[in-house]
Amino acid sequence: MALAVSGNSVIGFVGLGSMGLPMAKNLVTKGFTVRGADLRAEAVKELADAGGVAATSPADAAQQADVLVLMVVNAEQAETVLFSMGALDAMMKDGTVILMATCAPGAVESLAKRVEATGRQFVDAPVSGGVVGAKGGTLTIMCSAPNAVFNHVKPVLDTFGDKVFHVGEKPGQGAMVKTVNQLLCGVHIAAMAEAFSLAEKAGIDLKTLLQIVSNSAASSWMIKDRGPRMVEEPGPVTSAVDIFVKDLGIVLQAGTSMKAALPIAAAAHQMFLATSGQGKGTLDDSQVIAAYRKVSGK
Amino acid sequence: MALAVSGNSVIGFVGLGSMGLPMAKNLVTKGFTVRGADLRAEAVKELADAGGVAATSPADAAQQADVLVLMVVNAEQAETVLFSMGALDAMMKDGTVILMATCAPGAVESLAKRVEATGRQFVDAPVSGGVVGAKGGTLTIMCSAPNAVFNHVKPVLDTFGDKVFHVGEKPGQGAMVKTVNQLLCGVHIAAMAEAFSLAEKAGIDLKTLLQIVSNSAASSWMIKDRGPRMVEEPGPVTSAVDIFVKDLGIVLQAGTSMKAALPIAAAAHQMFLATSGQGKGTLDDSQVIAAYRKVSGK
Repeated sequence: MALAVSGNSVIGFVGLGSMGLPMAKNLVTKGFTVRGADLRAEAVKELADAGGVAATSPADAAQQADVLVLMVVNAEQAETVLFSMGALDAMMKDGTVILMATCAPGAVESLAKRVEATGRQFVDAPVSGGVVGAKGGTLTIMCSAPNAVFNHVKPVLDTFGDKVFHVGEKPGQGAMVKTVNQLLCGVHIAAMAEAFSLAEKAGIDLKTLLQIVSNSAASSWMIKDRGPRMVEEPGPVTSAVDIFVKDLGIVLQAGTSMKAALPIAAAAHQMFLATSGQGKGTLDDSQVIAAYRKVSGK
Repeated sequence: MALAVSGNSVIGFVGLGSMGLPMAKNLVTKGFTVRGADLRAEAVKELADAGGVAATSPADAAQQADVLVLMVVNAEQAETVLFSMGALDAMMKDGTVILMATCAPGAVESLAKRVEATGRQFVDAPVSGGVVGAKGGTLTIMCSAPNAVFNHVKPVLDTFGDKVFHVGEKPGQGAMVKTVNQLLCGVHIAAMAEAFSLAEKAGIDLKTLLQIVSNSAASSWMIKDRGPRMVEEPGPVTSAVDIFVKDLGIVLQAGTSMKAALPIAAAAHQMFLATSGQGKGTLDDSQVIAAYRKVSGK
């Protein structure tokens, strides 16, 4: 492993979705050689048009790569890319894998072990900040890795985000911080639904209520962002109910493996599940209020 | 009932505590004749020194009063003052009672009925904003009353707060909005404790975590305010664990009378209760994290 990666380094990038593609493009802009792979040929072409290299497979993207960035959907996809599709074997013998998907901490730990067993390094680095943050290079990155490894890949992480936190040296700790972040996000949305459905039943005008709780000690980022979507028409889906079925599922899985009781997160998860069970899993996550309306009447 | 109350109106004020006293003084400054009563003679003297009238009892405070403001601790105290101690009978026959304590919506409804049965008006007007808001006249006031009654007392409410919301015409609706506000506040604190205790068990540095979640979609007013108190030394108590044992108790009571299931608030209440059960009820409410540490180990 060299010192920090530089503009001469080859970076493999797998997963050119709505977040991965702009992240990979930002690496190109910064002067890195980026070999990108995705199932969607269109996304690969867009990266090549922007100055990247179109790879034909994850293993092809990893050829000669010092760093391999995985911006895939979940831990299962990361496992498939690395092991079944041969990306890990294709990259440099002392290369570093950066896993940026939202995964359960336990799954990250076990992937890290398998990567490190081949003599390569592993960086656990989930993100938050959405498509806007991915495009602007302003993501929050919750990174865990040994100090030397963190310093090695820091120029890459700095390209993706302006809030890069080194939260620990063990793989899984980055995922744990992201997990905790999602616990709070999910609970805040469900708690708002619980509060608003109670007020609605009591005949309170929800628009007035939203104005009050947006400006009091009861406020949250989610109240300001999701509140209008819950009270009026939700508009286009920014994040679906089923995302929190999954993410609060990861939270509870983390609690189980840490043997930590999470009664509030568990209650919130049930309400997202119930909403999904009503056939509303693809609706905007603010629509978790539907579960409360169904449970207790409007 | 005249039109809006004016500087010639006599206002009775019962409950000159840390919030009531500055509120009553603000009425004096505005030119109202304020007759104040409290069990603490010192507080009554302070009001008189500021230009108010020292009353010897709640009934004395209510003499000739067009408006009677109750800034007492709870619904039981309001009932005692109005009915057992004769304040209601002492005030003008067409007077208006303004109840500003935090009470369960059901209790407010039943007090309103008894007041209205005597031909007088009732205004349900709980507040938020604490001592700072009471002193500065910047409280948030969540008021329910018939339109004409609301307009009648509006000059009094405007003296207390700069965010006066008329949330409904029925007594109990103001209390319901305050209840919903407290549901969110209590859940946000307990959810933060749940999240932080999980992260702590996973070896995450809580100060770094706080920095991350204070600036992400996971943020809340409570995370910014109570977070530092949870992660470092809590310092002097701003609001105690037992306040949320009480306030989330009121939330669940409201849910019961509305027949609305509140699974998240119920879980949060249990954790404040457990903290109080550890003998920590008088500690800062951020210390609800102690219950999590005890339940699942640190």
